[in-house]
Amino acid sequence: MQATESTAPSKATKPRRSVRSRARSGGRSANLAERGGGGINQLPKRKFMNRFPPVAFLSEDEIESIHQASLTVLRDIGMSFMHPEALKILKEHGAEIVPDSDVVKFDPALVEEYIAKVPPTFTLRGRNPDSVHQIGGKEIVVGTVSSAPNCSDLDNGHRPGNQKDYENLLRLNQYFNVFSFVGGYPVEPADLPPETRHLDASEAMLRLSDKPFYGYSLGRARILDSIEICRRGLGIGDQELLQDAYLMTVVNTSSPMRLDGPMIEGIIEMAQVRQPVIITPFTLSGAMAPASLSGALVSQNAEALASIAFMQMVKAGAPLVYGTFTSNVDMKSGAPAFGTPEYVKTTLASGQLGRRYKIPMRASNACAANAVDGQAAYESMFSLWSFVLGGIHVCKHGAGWLEGGLVASFEKLIMDVEILQNFLEMMEPIAMDADSMALEAIREVGQGGHFFGAAHTMARYDTAFYSPLVSDWRNHGAWEEAGSPQTAEHCNRVWKQALAEYQQPEWDPACAESVREYVELRRAQGGSESLPDHAA
Amino acid sequence: MQATESTAPSKATKPRRSVRSRARSGGRSANLAERGGGGINQLPKRKFMNRFPPVAFLSEDEIESIHQASLTVLRDIGMSFMHPEALKILKEHGAEIVPDSDVVKFDPALVEEYIAKVPPTFTLRGRNPDSVHQIGGKEIVVGTVSSAPNCSDLDNGHRPGNQKDYENLLRLNQYFNVFSFVGGYPVEPADLPPETRHLDASEAMLRLSDKPFYGYSLGRARILDSIEICRRGLGIGDQELLQDAYLMTVVNTSSPMRLDGPMIEGIIEMAQVRQPVIITPFTLSGAMAPASLSGALVSQNAEALASIAFMQMVKAGAPLVYGTFTSNVDMKSGAPAFGTPEYVKTTLASGQLGRRYKIPMRASNACAANAVDGQAAYESMFSLWSFVLGGIHVCKHGAGWLEGGLVASFEKLIMDVEILQNFLEMMEPIAMDADSMALEAIREVGQGGHFFGAAHTMARYDTAFYSPLVSDWRNHGAWEEAGSPQTAEHCNRVWKQALAEYQQPEWDPACAESVREYVELRRAQGGSESLPDHAA
Repeated sequence: MQATESTAPSKATKPRRSVRSRARSGGRSANLAERGGGGINQLPKRKFMNRFPPVAFLSEDEIESIHQASLTVLRDIGMSFMHPEALKILKEHGAEIVPDSDVVKFDPALVEEYIAKVPPTFTLRGRNPDSVHQIGGKEIVVGTVSSAPNCSDLDNGHRPGNQKDYENLLRLNQYFNVFSFVGGYPVEPADLPPETRHLDASEAMLRLSDKPFYGYSLGRARILDSIEICRRGLGIGDQELLQDAYLMTVVNTSSPMRLDGPMIEGIIEMAQVRQPVIITPFTLSGAMAPASLSGALVSQNAEALASIAFMQMVKAGAPLVYGTFTSNVDMKSGAPAFGTPEYVKTTLASGQLGRRYKIPMRASNACAANAVDGQAAYESMFSLWSFVLGGIHVCKHGAGWLEGGLVASFEKLIMDVEILQNFLEMMEPIAMDADSMALEAIREVGQGGHFFGAAHTMARYDTAFYSPLVSDWRNHGAWEEAGSPQTAEHCNRVWKQALAEYQQPEWDPACAESVREYVELRRAQGGSESLPDHAA
Repeated sequence: MQATESTAPSKATKPRRSVRSRARSGGRSANLAERGGGGINQLPKRKFMNRFPPVAFLSEDEIESIHQASLTVLRDIGMSFMHPEALKILKEHGAEIVPDSDVVKFDPALVEEYIAKVPPTFTLRGRNPDSVHQIGGKEIVVGTVSSAPNCSDLDNGHRPGNQKDYENLLRLNQYFNVFSFVGGYPVEPADLPPETRHLDASEAMLRLSDKPFYGYSLGRARILDSIEICRRGLGIGDQELLQDAYLMTVVNTSSPMRLDGPMIEGIIEMAQVRQPVIITPFTLSGAMAPASLSGALVSQNAEALASIAFMQMVKAGAPLVYGTFTSNVDMKSGAPAFGTPEYVKTTLASGQLGRRYKIPMRASNACAANAVDGQAAYESMFSLWSFVLGGIHVCKHGAGWLEGGLVASFEKLIMDVEILQNFLEMMEPIAMDADSMALEAIREVGQGGHFFGAAHTMARYDTAFYSPLVSDWRNHGAWEEAGSPQTAEHCNRVWKQALAEYQQPEWDPACAESVREYVELRRAQGGSESLPDHAA
């Protein structure tokens, strides 16, 4: 009897036939096919509402001491704002510019005054009217990996980012319901010319996806083009644009304690039209931040508070998100590590800082693995659980991130979709109605026997439990017959199937035409080499 | 600049040399070797104290409704106790035996009366005086996978359980500090004769490990032998044995609603000497329990409460643990699934039931994967997080469980050790002293530059962050040069190294001799074919 825990009778006694039919046609989708469904059986569109209460990893006093230390850093050490326009704005609003430098020092009261102006929530909208998300509450919004210079899959291995892979990864971002916004460029379309890349990439985003749009803060011309392409693509007026959020961008500090010119222009232009900026210090503990977690948190928080205060000086009440990216490096090789115990702790603490400031928070599904293997899975799981328990709102790099973000992996993207679907399903309440409590079924089966044939079971056959996309639950014999496929191989099958099933979303032809006109106009003007005519 | 999130400067600019030296001699241990450490750098002995508050997944009303429904099941439907001795004890204590059957019905008040007698905590001790654990508080105790009929490793693949692998897996249970007790037979030593297997297996447990002992409740003779061997092996008297817990056993119900004879004898004999029984209903939702989570929880709880009440009738105040094993099956194949969203939810809810009853809880690190791949990692991570967030105390099958428990995998065991070490490290507080807050280091580095060379970093070079056992953080080029090793291959290297470094613990020769005398005596008596002379 002791063996009951390890011997799975049902698994052992299962007739081979049904198992082999699964083996032949490949797991879950095969089961569906048998039942006439066919295709990928992903979870229906459903908001990712976080049921888990946030964890107070640090005490309120400890959070307060990080806050106070950050204010001390901004008062005594200061942060470089590498753009004269920023220095002018900061000076006008009462910050102190260190003579003959771009270092800005802040009186603590000045920081407190401006971070209090950040809206605690905002609404993010996509072209699809169903695509409406409240940022700053219980909902978690997820996008795929972004900005990877390379991509990879099991068939063709590594290659530099290119337009074809860029568009296929965007299709996956659109296809899977776990993604609520376009995460950015999933991979850099490096075969497009740099000056006009953002124009073609932005047009492709709108053509291939109706989820909330994304722009890059790589200088004034590019962010202005992104905003205008988004406005035209969604067919909304300048006033409408000011009401809600339609595109997001990430601004990284150049840690330690610097904000560079292109990022500053991004903050200024996004603030002007009240679109959200995800302000994310790049504070890797041991590299661009102190080799202690509290020290790295002080650095992160000082850089974030200065940048956030600056954005509120540009436009009070402009929506933004506080991003945490703090992790540690391998002290031996200098390589960044993600999904580590240190990453979990700084993410939980950052969530506490965000709640203290009443500012929406962003984190990432990051890992340092080189393959879609066990390490990739447990590092991503540590990242995602810290996310859920940290009460984080925006999940960047939610799927496909590999090699510390140097690669967008098609298989890793699918494994992450499977993990994210598990989280979504986990958030569903347990049905507690009388029928679910099953007293009648328990009476019917009595002592001994089993519930396989019970009416209560039959009624729930298709819907009782989560059906995985890639998890392989066959017994060992059937699994070996099927060629002993590991997780990455199942993922390889699923992304190809998803691309085959992908359908391009509707897009008002007038809006599409308006975007294409703008793209051609700006191409003729040299793209990012010149400012658009509508620039202030 | 946007690329900062995906391009890892330190990773990219790292000189090849140090990376290659890691590649040659194999990751972490190589780094240690370079620094003269050598060997596996596992975490020091440290109690696994759970810092995370338990999650209330169900409301108090919902928990109460599961409790009430369980009492209704025990009052109206009843549970089979397949042993006349049990029926006699139950009748004497006021339970109702259905005429001409072994079905026992309980008045709700009777159940409430006896479950209230369970001690909320107890102390578990091993031969090693440092091996002392409080069960029922914040500590989580972990043992390896147990009772697997087969084992496997990458070199030799699958094979039936045998004495050699049994002893090697016990050595790993002893070697790694994350394990606080012997989980049981990590794999069944099936090449030992059934009647005397428990004698040789028990002697080996004591010879190879000084952590708390484990016995099997496979009938009166075997459990009495286990208790006596434990007593002699630790050199403690009958009275001392009654004071604290020195061995644990698992009792599984034969779900639905049955407790079989060998398990009943185990409960009776363990209760007599006040040793803890982990009472674990085998309620797989859709197979031996209703295909609804609340229904499966009602079944689990009814079977647990009846068995717990019975043990308290045998000996009021006898220590025990309430085990949850409730998961779901794949409705298509009947195969059990673990580490699923359903498993997480039932584990969280079970933790709430345990807190309501003030009874220590047990769960497992289970998965349904066939390989040490991504699925194995994410399923185990879901299991372990539900464990931590469920406020569970005893972790059975903590490492090495594969294929739904049909296999003890050497590589999976190491991957789980890595994951468990990550959890342990995550539980460590963030140092918040002035030096850790690093204001001076932040001042020293100022704007731009990096912390690699900072005095603050140098002082923390060796100790700043967790050093993984298997995680591979090398950049892609170095990783490819090293043969693109995946997680399972690193695990393969680590378990061999651990076995090479393993040292047999001290064992008082007089105690060892006394155990061997007993084993030979019982062997001569036919082992489990006869009761030991000291049997009541």
